[in-house]
Amino acid sequence: MTHTPIRFGIIGCADIARKVSRAILLAPNATLSAVASRSLHKAADFAKSNGFPPEAKIYGSYESLLDDPDIDAVYMPLPTTLHLKWAVLIAQKKKHLLTEKPVALNVAEFDEIVRACEENGVQIMDGTMWMHHPRTHKMKEFLQDKQRFGQLKTVNSCFTFFTDPDFLKNDIRVKPDLDALGALGDAGWYGIKSILWAADYELPKTVTALRGAVLNEAGVILDCGASLQWEDGKKATFHCSFLASLTMNITAIGTHGTLHLTDFVIPYQEQEASYTASAKPGFNELVTGWEPLPSEHTVTVDLPQEVCMVREFATLVQNIKKKGVKPDMKWPTISRKTQLVLDAVKASIEKGFEPVEIVN
Amino acid sequence: MTHTPIRFGIIGCADIARKVSRAILLAPNATLSAVASRSLHKAADFAKSNGFPPEAKIYGSYESLLDDPDIDAVYMPLPTTLHLKWAVLIAQKKKHLLTEKPVALNVAEFDEIVRACEENGVQIMDGTMWMHHPRTHKMKEFLQDKQRFGQLKTVNSCFTFFTDPDFLKNDIRVKPDLDALGALGDAGWYGIKSILWAADYELPKTVTALRGAVLNEAGVILDCGASLQWEDGKKATFHCSFLASLTMNITAIGTHGTLHLTDFVIPYQEQEASYTASAKPGFNELVTGWEPLPSEHTVTVDLPQEVCMVREFATLVQNIKKKGVKPDMKWPTISRKTQLVLDAVKASIEKGFEPVEIVN
Repeated sequence: MTHTPIRFGIIGCADIARKVSRAILLAPNATLSAVASRSLHKAADFAKSNGFPPEAKIYGSYESLLDDPDIDAVYMPLPTTLHLKWAVLIAQKKKHLLTEKPVALNVAEFDEIVRACEENGVQIMDGTMWMHHPRTHKMKEFLQDKQRFGQLKTVNSCFTFFTDPDFLKNDIRVKPDLDALGALGDAGWYGIKSILWAADYELPKTVTALRGAVLNEAGVILDCGASLQWEDGKKATFHCSFLASLTMNITAIGTHGTLHLTDFVIPYQEQEASYTASAKPGFNELVTGWEPLPSEHTVTVDLPQEVCMVREFATLVQNIKKKGVKPDMKWPTISRKTQLVLDAVKASIEKGFEPVEIVN
Repeated sequence: MTHTPIRFGIIGCADIARKVSRAILLAPNATLSAVASRSLHKAADFAKSNGFPPEAKIYGSYESLLDDPDIDAVYMPLPTTLHLKWAVLIAQKKKHLLTEKPVALNVAEFDEIVRACEENGVQIMDGTMWMHHPRTHKMKEFLQDKQRFGQLKTVNSCFTFFTDPDFLKNDIRVKPDLDALGALGDAGWYGIKSILWAADYELPKTVTALRGAVLNEAGVILDCGASLQWEDGKKATFHCSFLASLTMNITAIGTHGTLHLTDFVIPYQEQEASYTASAKPGFNELVTGWEPLPSEHTVTVDLPQEVCMVREFATLVQNIKKKGVKPDMKWPTISRKTQLVLDAVKASIEKGFEPVEIVN
């Protein structure tokens, strides 16, 4: 059964929208139908330089795009502080919503957004691309292998990148009225989600921010981390930062095996991506080497991870449009858990690094 | 100038003594001269199965080995709780001391041991082999490269290995009267030392154990971790465990670069060892891949790391014996800092994961 492609509109011309525009162009079940900016000129330039088809519409306001009956879904790369207002309006206009992360400033806002989506029967998904990479599915198979990986014991996740003085002064990600969650929202979102992913989305019981978090003068987080504890003894730590060189590692350690990769957010190369699986590692007799050695696995990529994301989102929207099914709750449920943990990290920092219980 | 090889005696026939016996045999400036066990039969068996030369002496007590005037240095693979007594006696007998780690149960005992060594003019070094691997020196060059690595911001270090029910019931490393520091002493020693190594041996200001430490019924640590903070904003975390699959990672992140390796304690293979250096990493224009990619560096090994360790120790002893210089303080100074941090982690666990200030 072939479906009509899902018609996307984009509100805002952030850098990340360039990558997602290309992804919509490449996705087999999606088309680029419109772009809106508060400046018509900027929107036109964006469409021109990002391969929009000639029939794509150019809007000088977000509202006008949302009123276009020929748009099925909206991609929203706006600063986090604007998400609540625009996400609710998008839902009310019966448009499906692919939103940049973090979804909201906190879980209360998150719930308002999801309520609006539910009430209007529209799909919501956040733009965490790596969740859709084929490598992610292969790694999950290893994590679920009771023989080779065993029971998850601990995860360490890290996403840092170094920013220059101009970023630290002027970027929206250091402004309390724009991306108010700073590095925690921008980079920590990935680390938290990767931990939940490895833990089969079981929420931790307690979250404790690590001492030494760095905030700017306006109180926006530039660097922080946390340790997470589960009822069954599982543990995890993550670190996110605007102040340290680009690094994106996950190490998930089970009783019998270890999963490891160093490019989880954005793979080194688009065409293929690797990870290391160590199953029942030990030492040789004199403990002068490992037996067996960890094995490296490479996954070939047919479609880049952001295209897989758009395809998955568009498929869910097609199911709603054509089959009349309800919006899928898998993705927003994962997003909400991520937001809950993120809230707890922030609360723990505000409480002087005291542990914060997660209440679902 | 050629020196007479340093004559080693070994007290105790622990498994690790087999690896170190081979290292003494392979070191160009050391010879295996004697082994002692509380059982003469066991000592004879050990000498026979570990390639001791026919003229090597076999002793049925540690004391008799220490009274042998033809022994220059003693390798001590005894349980930690016995270190104070035997290390002091070794020093009083004017033997140089290569001791297994952790050096002592706490820094007070450590200082007693080092005082005895100083008073008797003998060298002390702990048996942390990886510190002597040629790879370690190459990695240090990268960490010190202000252009490619920049200023150190954070280190994450992990050393875990999975043990079976028999180990968790019977091994000396879970017994409060033997290796009373458990996983913290056995595996955490490496993690702490690796962090200090990356931080140029600058002590952290504060150490906070991570919640979720696992202790056995006798109060011996089976799994724990900590976060460390420095005056200048540097941070580090480590995790050590008897309960999770064999993993030994260091990730050291600077402002400009990242150092990463996954076999720091015992390299995968004896003949060569690798690490990854990422210098000024960034993304391509559409952020669909990295530019430049991290580079992998492989170091060829002439002598295994434990042989380099024995050679280094024997060289220091030769300097004392032949040139009349004082014992070298570099290694015991590093060991003492490791012990100080280890004490602080233990104290933090005992205080309910409160931060502990490091007082040197």
